[in-house]
Amino acid sequence: MNVQPLGLARLVADIEAGLTTPARIIGAAEERIDALDGEIAAFVRRAPAESVAAAIAATGPLAGVPFGVKDIFDTADMATEHGSPLYARHRPVADAALVAMARKAGAAILGKTATTQFASLDPCGTRNPHDISRTPGGSSSGSAAAVAAGMVAGACGSQTGGSVLRPASYCGVAGYKPSFRLLPTVGMKTFAWSLDTAGLFAAGVADVALLAARLTGRDLARAPLADAAGLRIGLYRSSVDALIEPEMQAAWHRAARALEAAGATLVEVAEPAALSAARDVHGAVQNFEAAHALMWEHRTHRAAIAPRVLAQLDEGAAISPADYDAARRTARIGRRTATSLFETVDALLLPSALGAAPEGLGSTGDPALNKLWTLTGNPCVSVPGLTTTAGLPLGISIVTRFGRDAEALAIGALLEARLRA
Amino acid sequence: MNVQPLGLARLVADIEAGLTTPARIIGAAEERIDALDGEIAAFVRRAPAESVAAAIAATGPLAGVPFGVKDIFDTADMATEHGSPLYARHRPVADAALVAMARKAGAAILGKTATTQFASLDPCGTRNPHDISRTPGGSSSGSAAAVAAGMVAGACGSQTGGSVLRPASYCGVAGYKPSFRLLPTVGMKTFAWSLDTAGLFAAGVADVALLAARLTGRDLARAPLADAAGLRIGLYRSSVDALIEPEMQAAWHRAARALEAAGATLVEVAEPAALSAARDVHGAVQNFEAAHALMWEHRTHRAAIAPRVLAQLDEGAAISPADYDAARRTARIGRRTATSLFETVDALLLPSALGAAPEGLGSTGDPALNKLWTLTGNPCVSVPGLTTTAGLPLGISIVTRFGRDAEALAIGALLEARLRA
Repeated sequence: MNVQPLGLARLVADIEAGLTTPARIIGAAEERIDALDGEIAAFVRRAPAESVAAAIAATGPLAGVPFGVKDIFDTADMATEHGSPLYARHRPVADAALVAMARKAGAAILGKTATTQFASLDPCGTRNPHDISRTPGGSSSGSAAAVAAGMVAGACGSQTGGSVLRPASYCGVAGYKPSFRLLPTVGMKTFAWSLDTAGLFAAGVADVALLAARLTGRDLARAPLADAAGLRIGLYRSSVDALIEPEMQAAWHRAARALEAAGATLVEVAEPAALSAARDVHGAVQNFEAAHALMWEHRTHRAAIAPRVLAQLDEGAAISPADYDAARRTARIGRRTATSLFETVDALLLPSALGAAPEGLGSTGDPALNKLWTLTGNPCVSVPGLTTTAGLPLGISIVTRFGRDAEALAIGALLEARLRA
Repeated sequence: MNVQPLGLARLVADIEAGLTTPARIIGAAEERIDALDGEIAAFVRRAPAESVAAAIAATGPLAGVPFGVKDIFDTADMATEHGSPLYARHRPVADAALVAMARKAGAAILGKTATTQFASLDPCGTRNPHDISRTPGGSSSGSAAAVAAGMVAGACGSQTGGSVLRPASYCGVAGYKPSFRLLPTVGMKTFAWSLDTAGLFAAGVADVALLAARLTGRDLARAPLADAAGLRIGLYRSSVDALIEPEMQAAWHRAARALEAAGATLVEVAEPAALSAARDVHGAVQNFEAAHALMWEHRTHRAAIAPRVLAQLDEGAAISPADYDAARRTARIGRRTATSLFETVDALLLPSALGAAPEGLGSTGDPALNKLWTLTGNPCVSVPGLTTTAGLPLGISIVTRFGRDAEALAIGALLEARLRA
């Protein structure tokens, strides 16, 4: 398959320069969805014609930008099904906050993208545009695949474990998981309220930074860094590293050397015990909260729940409030420890996934490397550009201090440029 | 009007002792709603007959407990309208988490209680059972009034400024605003995600503690304190105190003396500058978040929005992300400062409202004394029992350290018992 993402920054510049129009861009994106999505299955629902017409006429800083919305975000003009038969044809009254922000900015929402059930681990049938025999990752499967295949220039997703960074890595696009609650989650189906983080996908890091900046009005798309002089980059070594596949180890090494060549100082950072402990309690925090957030579904429609979610809900329902509170205390200590790491480094560098997208559609892969940073709430950017020898994408993550999203995006963009050079 | 709340603890004990049955209690509650609610207008919607029948047959630690649900919490068996014509007849797919927890515990949800529009400040027409010419307070107007009038034994509400503690004070019932996120807000309409706090109402403090304990499985209903020996109680003096009416000043003094007589040491606590600053940014945090949470409503249905909410949304839409971030930093420093207060006192004592329920239905009163503690997330319990010379209720709040909800409830119950003695 001809995998060619749509560069959002270029597209916006071309529109602003009068070189093309929203109508032309949106029309081409719709044609690409028509042509490719039978095979990819990134979309579960297309926007109605009147919404597309309104989008063509829209103004704003994202006018003309084809955009995909993960099907756990409410949309007033389309059903929102959360990947669950319990929500078949469910039409929300209002747009989710992030969807309303996208429309306000003029983005052209072309449809709802496939999600695993309730944004958990049960695969939803979307295929990886780089190799349709492989998973695109999850839970934001459709958003990552739609951006990778050039069907849209941007998309939103969410991450409770590794649901933005992992599919970004598998699909060879940029993924951005902001600082916790930088993007609102109002109108997004809750799985675990202290973990669920709305995030974004675009072709490259500069694209996702521009998308985030124009959605939020925040200073997230800064001028490119000329080099990495003065930057201290920590190579984050954790107990999970034994699981990292050799080709990803090599990619990590290459990314580190690229930053070093750009002037950065590389520093070894051994995972503090408090952060190993925090990773270990991610499941307890997540599943206790999920068992409450999805209590109606779990108690009244057990038979309609997919097996991996069901196991999480059963596990969560068996966790006592005291054990949950203990896990939250461990998480809080982890957050403070994560902050202290950034007293000696500007950013951490680590793989976005254990390796390339696994073969088959039976699993969405493993979030082992991502979930700690979801729990701590630190901003993470998955940088595309590296591949296996067979050509499958491998993403590398930049992690910065809480609130320093612009720095993560700037360092990520520099790394991407150096890898491309 | 004969205002006689239903004691939840007594009711549960009577059912467990076989002295009465859920059917009898629920039937009597329904009759009381039939008899009184034409005048009070606490309910906007009654539960369908099949839900009431299921509730009569339910088992669990709250079996037989008539319960009211503020109409910003989703219910699968009834419409959920958020006090807004935009949501007229809107029927959610699922129960909100707190509603599912209530049903799991066996509580008998008899209907949806009136809320101000989107739980803000525009009055909804509910009357105060102690004087129907007065407001019951808001935004949890119907829940407070329904408990005060004995229509239900417990109810849920929410507080973004002072929407639990103030109506509890005005209506002469116990109100409990837990530590931030102790009760889940999933499926509750969001106004401001870093402030919205689900809370509970019941006749007295021991009742609301038992309700909270049985809803959550947490150790929140401890054995009564024999006395206050060893407790240090801070009389919290802030810049807002000048607004407190003389009869409330006298009630505050009486509550303090009651705890002193029970053995407590009273300590003067002058508001730290960091907490005055935190109170001052409450509006900015709230309105910026509301302008995002309700962006769909604000952008597409401006004419359908009530005037006070609309003013908040307009104000919020004009706040820059940088100003919001600065306000959040001030709030974070406030949270830390609040925690440090409890190094020298066990609890703070302050009025739950500026005075008794104001005359008329044109305003729901002033949350000036509550909103700081919503921003900091500390647990608060409004203790009923005191009145003006004319017999109108006055509530006094106990505030404890974040996470020490059981202590706030225990001290509140002791104060309530001493005031009654």
